[in-house]
Amino acid sequence: MMIVNFSVISTRLIEYEWGSLLIALGIGLVKIIGLILAYLLVKGLGNRILSQTFTNYQSKKNVSPGRAKTLESLTKNVFGYALLFILIVTVLQVFNYDVTALIAGAGIIGLAVGFGAQGLVSDVVTGFFILLEKQIDVGDYITTGEFSGICESVGLRQTKIRGFDGTLHFVPNREITSMSNHSRGNMRALIDIGISYDDDIDQATKVLQEACDKAAANNHQIIDGPNVIGVQQLGSSDVVLRIIAQTENMAQWSVERELRKSLKEALEENGIEIPFPHQVYLEKKEA
Amino acid sequence: MMIVNFSVISTRLIEYEWGSLLIALGIGLVKIIGLILAYLLVKGLGNRILSQTFTNYQSKKNVSPGRAKTLESLTKNVFGYALLFILIVTVLQVFNYDVTALIAGAGIIGLAVGFGAQGLVSDVVTGFFILLEKQIDVGDYITTGEFSGICESVGLRQTKIRGFDGTLHFVPNREITSMSNHSRGNMRALIDIGISYDDDIDQATKVLQEACDKAAANNHQIIDGPNVIGVQQLGSSDVVLRIIAQTENMAQWSVERELRKSLKEALEENGIEIPFPHQVYLEKKEA
Amino acid sequence: MMIVNFSVISTRLIEYEWGSLLIALGIGLVKIIGLILAYLLVKGLGNRILSQTFTNYQSKKNVSPGRAKTLESLTKNVFGYALLFILIVTVLQVFNYDVTALIAGAGIIGLAVGFGAQGLVSDVVTGFFILLEKQIDVGDYITTGEFSGICESVGLRQTKIRGFDGTLHFVPNREITSMSNHSRGNMRALIDIGISYDDDIDQATKVLQEACDKAAANNHQIIDGPNVIGVQQLGSSDVVLRIIAQTENMAQWSVERELRKSLKEALEENGIEIPFPHQVYLEKKEA
Amino acid sequence: MMIVNFSVISTRLIEYEWGSLLIALGIGLVKIIGLILAYLLVKGLGNRILSQTFTNYQSKKNVSPGRAKTLESLTKNVFGYALLFILIVTVLQVFNYDVTALIAGAGIIGLAVGFGAQGLVSDVVTGFFILLEKQIDVGDYITTGEFSGICESVGLRQTKIRGFDGTLHFVPNREITSMSNHSRGNMRALIDIGISYDDDIDQATKVLQEACDKAAANNHQIIDGPNVIGVQQLGSSDVVLRIIAQTENMAQWSVERELRKSLKEALEENGIEIPFPHQVYLEKKEA
Amino acid sequence: MMIVNFSVISTRLIEYEWGSLLIALGIGLVKIIGLILAYLLVKGLGNRILSQTFTNYQSKKNVSPGRAKTLESLTKNVFGYALLFILIVTVLQVFNYDVTALIAGAGIIGLAVGFGAQGLVSDVVTGFFILLEKQIDVGDYITTGEFSGICESVGLRQTKIRGFDGTLHFVPNREITSMSNHSRGNMRALIDIGISYDDDIDQATKVLQEACDKAAANNHQIIDGPNVIGVQQLGSSDVVLRIIAQTENMAQWSVERELRKSLKEALEENGIEIPFPHQVYLEKKEA
Amino acid sequence: MMIVNFSVISTRLIEYEWGSLLIALGIGLVKIIGLILAYLLVKGLGNRILSQTFTNYQSKKNVSPGRAKTLESLTKNVFGYALLFILIVTVLQVFNYDVTALIAGAGIIGLAVGFGAQGLVSDVVTGFFILLEKQIDVGDYITTGEFSGICESVGLRQTKIRGFDGTLHFVPNREITSMSNHSRGNMRALIDIGISYDDDIDQATKVLQEACDKAAANNHQIIDGPNVIGVQQLGSSDVVLRIIAQTENMAQWSVERELRKSLKEALEENGIEIPFPHQVYLEKKEA
Amino acid sequence: MMIVNFSVISTRLIEYEWGSLLIALGIGLVKIIGLILAYLLVKGLGNRILSQTFTNYQSKKNVSPGRAKTLESLTKNVFGYALLFILIVTVLQVFNYDVTALIAGAGIIGLAVGFGAQGLVSDVVTGFFILLEKQIDVGDYITTGEFSGICESVGLRQTKIRGFDGTLHFVPNREITSMSNHSRGNMRALIDIGISYDDDIDQATKVLQEACDKAAANNHQIIDGPNVIGVQQLGSSDVVLRIIAQTENMAQWSVERELRKSLKEALEENGIEIPFPHQVYLEKKEA
Repeated sequence: MMIVNFSVISTRLIEYEWGSLLIALGIGLVKIIGLILAYLLVKGLGNRILSQTFTNYQSKKNVSPGRAKTLESLTKNVFGYALLFILIVTVLQVFNYDVTALIAGAGIIGLAVGFGAQGLVSDVVTGFFILLEKQIDVGDYITTGEFSGICESVGLRQTKIRGFDGTLHFVPNREITSMSNHSRGNMRALIDIGISYDDDIDQATKVLQEACDKAAANNHQIIDGPNVIGVQQLGSSDVVLRIIAQTENMAQWSVERELRKSLKEALEENGIEIPFPHQVYLEKKEA
Repeated sequence: MMIVNFSVISTRLIEYEWGSLLIALGIGLVKIIGLILAYLLVKGLGNRILSQTFTNYQSKKNVSPGRAKTLESLTKNVFGYALLFILIVTVLQVFNYDVTALIAGAGIIGLAVGFGAQGLVSDVVTGFFILLEKQIDVGDYITTGEFSGICESVGLRQTKIRGFDGTLHFVPNREITSMSNHSRGNMRALIDIGISYDDDIDQATKVLQEACDKAAANNHQIIDGPNVIGVQQLGSSDVVLRIIAQTENMAQWSVERELRKSLKEALEENGIEIPFPHQVYLEKKEA
Repeated sequence: MMIVNFSVISTRLIEYEWGSLLIALGIGLVKIIGLILAYLLVKGLGNRILSQTFTNYQSKKNVSPGRAKTLESLTKNVFGYALLFILIVTVLQVFNYDVTALIAGAGIIGLAVGFGAQGLVSDVVTGFFILLEKQIDVGDYITTGEFSGICESVGLRQTKIRGFDGTLHFVPNREITSMSNHSRGNMRALIDIGISYDDDIDQATKVLQEACDKAAANNHQIIDGPNVIGVQQLGSSDVVLRIIAQTENMAQWSVERELRKSLKEALEENGIEIPFPHQVYLEKKEA
Repeated sequence: MMIVNFSVISTRLIEYEWGSLLIALGIGLVKIIGLILAYLLVKGLGNRILSQTFTNYQSKKNVSPGRAKTLESLTKNVFGYALLFILIVTVLQVFNYDVTALIAGAGIIGLAVGFGAQGLVSDVVTGFFILLEKQIDVGDYITTGEFSGICESVGLRQTKIRGFDGTLHFVPNREITSMSNHSRGNMRALIDIGISYDDDIDQATKVLQEACDKAAANNHQIIDGPNVIGVQQLGSSDVVLRIIAQTENMAQWSVERELRKSLKEALEENGIEIPFPHQVYLEKKEA
Repeated sequence: MMIVNFSVISTRLIEYEWGSLLIALGIGLVKIIGLILAYLLVKGLGNRILSQTFTNYQSKKNVSPGRAKTLESLTKNVFGYALLFILIVTVLQVFNYDVTALIAGAGIIGLAVGFGAQGLVSDVVTGFFILLEKQIDVGDYITTGEFSGICESVGLRQTKIRGFDGTLHFVPNREITSMSNHSRGNMRALIDIGISYDDDIDQATKVLQEACDKAAANNHQIIDGPNVIGVQQLGSSDVVLRIIAQTENMAQWSVERELRKSLKEALEENGIEIPFPHQVYLEKKEA
Repeated sequence: MMIVNFSVISTRLIEYEWGSLLIALGIGLVKIIGLILAYLLVKGLGNRILSQTFTNYQSKKNVSPGRAKTLESLTKNVFGYALLFILIVTVLQVFNYDVTALIAGAGIIGLAVGFGAQGLVSDVVTGFFILLEKQIDVGDYITTGEFSGICESVGLRQTKIRGFDGTLHFVPNREITSMSNHSRGNMRALIDIGISYDDDIDQATKVLQEACDKAAANNHQIIDGPNVIGVQQLGSSDVVLRIIAQTENMAQWSVERELRKSLKEALEENGIEIPFPHQVYLEKKEA
Repeated sequence: MMIVNFSVISTRLIEYEWGSLLIALGIGLVKIIGLILAYLLVKGLGNRILSQTFTNYQSKKNVSPGRAKTLESLTKNVFGYALLFILIVTVLQVFNYDVTALIAGAGIIGLAVGFGAQGLVSDVVTGFFILLEKQIDVGDYITTGEFSGICESVGLRQTKIRGFDGTLHFVPNREITSMSNHSRGNMRALIDIGISYDDDIDQATKVLQEACDKAAANNHQIIDGPNVIGVQQLGSSDVVLRIIAQTENMAQWSVERELRKSLKEALEENGIEIPFPHQVYLEKKEA
């Protein structure tokens, strides 16, 4: 007889399942409540610690409130999402849904996107440290890779640099590995000037040094020097003398331009030649 | 006796399986309905939130509706497919088909294709941010990598740049890491002009500055300057003076061309030489 | 007594195994039939949707039937193989063969080959998009990487480019990241011509412009210009004037050649010199 | 009492284990036989399909039997080893040896070697497609990467190229990504020849074209042209005219050499100068 | 009757769960206490060993306390966090929460961030070894990659280099693979000076060597030499003699400058020519 | 009463464990013996097959016994270690030690080292094929990457190349991707010689060809040619003729040197000029 | 009644747990003792084998004791740590702590650090082989990548090279892929000297060879030659003759310097000219 014996089934339904199910449900509820409490506790505590940390950081490192705000907000967001993810997964486990499928699915999608978005994460990590360690301030004159100019903004994802020709360069932070900041202290002005092999080096040095001293006296942007430091090169047509000065930041170019003019005029007045390229000719009749 | 005792089997068939099977089916159904309800709820909620977000974004950042539409549609698609994948996997689990095989199979194929299509995902992620942050507008004059020209379109996968010689460059977005936008503000016109070592620098500067002032008066595209900023170089045959101006965007080239003509003519009128390359000859008879 | 009690065994054989085995077989059969039905349903449905999609695509984007056919066939193949793989694995699972071994084996081989064949997959993915988005048509003059020439064929795996010297370049599609298509609109003809520093710029411009206008009148391949746009450079021996024109696609070179001849002759007729390199000599007796 | 009660043990030995063990063994045997049968069936079927495929391929694509043989043998080998690996693993599973250890061990070794041998697999995959698609024939003049010469052999792992200086280059197939085949059609002969700025362009063109026509009449290797196509460049000392011809494959160099001689002599006979570099001298007394 | 029989349930509640639960809890508590004790023990022991190690290291390698402190603090931090992570995971396991979900979640996030933050870890590892092995001291003149200058600080994440022009370079430690330290011993001063082909090499050598000896006597920064080591090159216009000296660190440039002046003057006094570029002229009348 | 009832325990000790333990041990022993037998069988068989294969290979490919020995020994070693690893893991599994820990540990260490030692494995794989396919013999003149010279030894890990200046280059085999062997056949001697534009090309060709024929008659190292193949270039000051010859391997340089001398002398004797660089001078008085 | 029945619990506590727990503990203890014994045995044996191996290696390969000591110590350390890791994991397993958590945790941290420290492992592996195969000895003159100089030390992590200018280069071993050792045998001295086109090649060769022979007689550092090997180049102004010699290691530069002086003087004495650059002038009056 293949007829199903429903009374047996109903008996079993009554006897077995519901008690332990209720208990399981009860335990589940307790677990969930425990989890949520733990979640709220950890989140509140974590946020308080983070707030405290960044307040300290701001006052200690003398950072602008805006910058500290950006860093705090990013840190709290990452912390919050990580916690939420763990909560969801744990709650689902309590209901015995096999979360491996969910995680595996999320993992595959995540990995696939991750490969592509790798650059994005790298941008944010690097950006975080640029903001944290104040390597770049808005208004600094910086060079990174092939781009040079005044920094217009530093963000989590990218840094904007205004080139001197007016172009706006968008540089993703991950590309800013090695970086040169030209706005962190005095700069050097350097001039190489050639005199004739026939002229006396000592006299030329004296003439140039006098012109340098006069320039230094008239220009408050010059901090140290300029000094003639000696013969830098025995060139093919001239003896090259090097002059070096310390100037205020961003004043190096105008100081160099001014010095070039003064030095050229000083040499001229003292009859010292800045020689054109020389060549010796040997004539030979065609055989 | 190896004859199978069918009565025993049928008895067992009747007694054991069907009750718990029915219950399992019932629980399964309930679970599936719950899952689908959850799916619909999450999807509806997610889509509403996304719509709201992009409406805000559009009004706040002053973005064209078309661009906002593209971003919204992409975000909703990704969200929808991820949700659907999770639903299917979870439903299959309810029926106790071991989904690991399915996921593993999908994983292997996915990984294999993923390696190859990595570039594609990377294109879309970068494209998303280019659209979101308005780094490039259609019509901008941009340089990225070795390509320069007017941007003709910005898509999720690639950006089209029309070179000045008429060539159409197709650049996948992932190649647009560092990017220079030449259409974001005034541009600089820069001219280096050489005068003779015999000419007086002060006089030449005066002549050039006068020509500059006249040019600035006649050309409304010049915003600031042009100014003679000083001696940029003591060249091998000439003293190089640098002139700099601020012009309207894209007017830098025509301003430079005009200035070159005016400055050359101004020097000529005042008898100041733009010198050809010089060389000193020393003759020597062959030994 | 170590003698095996066969009667006990046979009793157990009779009593226990066969009933549940039969049931398991029955359930297995039902499952397989269900799986195959599902497989056929999904495959048929999928293929119909794909066919429909590509028919729409072809009519909407104005694509040649051959190209649409290639794309449709590739998509259906990938879809079919993925489905088949899932079917086989799932059927094997029904018989309780542990498919992890099979999948792991396939996975290891797949990964090993995948590393090597990575380029192949990448070729096909890129090729798919080149066909889909019509970046290149057969007959276009394109440049990609270091190769330039007329495209002879676009395939899923590689693109063939016929260089202008007759060489046939085989470029795998994955190497076609950034690509320049020179056959998408009018091209620019550009000529830089140098005049003497002694000549009058205005007069030279007038002479050249007249020659340009005459050339434009006689050549229907010139669409816009040619125009003398100004002084491009103050060279070491000459003043460089730039002339620009818009021409029909692929006519830029012949227009440039023709213009060079006309402009040279126009300058000659008007006594304006195209100067050779200049140098100033200063003689000095050897000391 | 710690004395072991052997009678109890022996009783348990007799009663429990052997029956189900025998059954397990029986089922195991049946499974193995089934597996081997399936293995033989799949292998035979697979090999037959592969043989058929390559016979079709050979007749359809007009491939030499040797090349088709190489491809068929490679395909059958890979298919055979993959099948054997699956068989072994599955048979071991039947005996309940936990194959994960074996697979994990094989996997670790495989991955370690795989990283190193990645290049090898890549070579074979690329080699397979080079053979399949006939990109290179033995005797072709090809360029790949920095190597140029006549192809001496195409193998699964590497291609041998005989450079024109006699060197034998061994190029692993994976290095052959982009490849240029110079033996697939007619080649171009190209000559740039400079005439004086004082000479008449029209007359020079006429003289050169006549010499070209004479050369074409005498040389059957010239297929089209040679034609003087116009002024390619206004050089610093000469006006450069370009001559282009179509020649038989590999005849481009001898045609170019012949043309150079004829054109030089033609210009000479008609008193048209091929100018040496020019320079204008301006003398100036040293101040 | 579908009414649930609560009395049965309550009976089961009373009879079964609580005893073993209590035991489980007890065992759990014992385990946790054991774990925490083990954790404290291992942590204390580990920290003591680390402190001891770094005290030894500092005294033995003569390292500044600040540097040793940085290394010790980093090592203890990493050790502490690793231990804490293991404790948390193990404690959770005791309560039977399935930690795989937690670890998998952490793993996916970790991997995703890890890809992006890979550079960060690499920086710290390299920084650790730079500090440990004293490759760079603050104040050293170093060159790494394209950056050269005086090291201003060495940190765990980056090294700051002050370029000679005043720029501050930020170099992430991972970029410091190969590094050149110019402050580790005496340096070489090297001068190549050309004399005329007509002058006697032996006499010139004698004159130069005498000048060198005089310079060495007057300059205490010269440690060895300078010596004329012979004919370095038969140049196109001069015979090049090489002079080499050993100087104190960082004195090489001033010594070189001083030597250039002395040697030039010594040759002049002895009538030995430093020749300008030579060229032989062959005049030919135009045919 | 919390006192433990030992009699109950001892009773349970006696009754339950030992029987099944003994059986398990017995089965374990049988399994281990079976495994070791299988191991010995497979190893013996494998080694025999490998020996046979390499003996065949040696006689067929005409390889030196030393080289064949190296390959055989490497292959047997790898085979042996892989087998041993599998044996150990399987034996441990029989004793129910969970080998996953062991494998996981080995895997992590292996992976960590593997990343670092990746180059090592790659060296050996490439070295294996270089030995197998006789691409390089000791004494060959080869070029690989930036290194050129005579091969001194080919090993599994690296190849030693003696540069022509006496330097010994150590090149890891993995760096030998593309490789050029200059000792595999006759080499080409190539000389480009320039004659004056005023000289007759036909006569110069005749003179040069006669000198070539005389050289070929006197030098048995010349296998084919030398032949004057025509005008290679219309240079700025000379007409360049190209001469090509086939020589014995490694004789190309001495043949080229000899030919240069003979050809220069032949032209001299026949009054044909090898011209110096030419330049046309146009004098102009300074305005 | 929800009151817990403690007597039932206590009864169960007494009856069930402790017996099997004791047995489990006993078995555990036995297992641990066995494991530790196995550990000590394997470690002792392994260390003895390693010591023996390195003693053999040292005596056979003639390696300095210090170098052998470094290698032995590294090998024993790696072996020891690997063994310890396996011991700890296995002991923990005996106590049924689920070690997967521990391993997974260690794995994630390990992988994260491993990515960053990859370079470190690579350094040590390469360093091991450099020490083992004696590619570099302290005092050798080597070139690797862009660094050249005398090797000051070879370590496991990095190699220190003292550049000839006094700079100390720190090169991580992983950067030493291809390496050139200039201290492994005699070196070549090579001089190219140009004579006039008007001079007789045979006579010049005779004069130079005589000077060479005289130099060889006076300098014991010359091992073979120097010999004039012929006409290396027909230069634009001179006929270049090449002289080659074999010298003792590191003597190549002083021999070259000495030869340059002798050869120049020999040519001078015999009236053979070392020509300056030549140029032919064609004068033309300006039209």
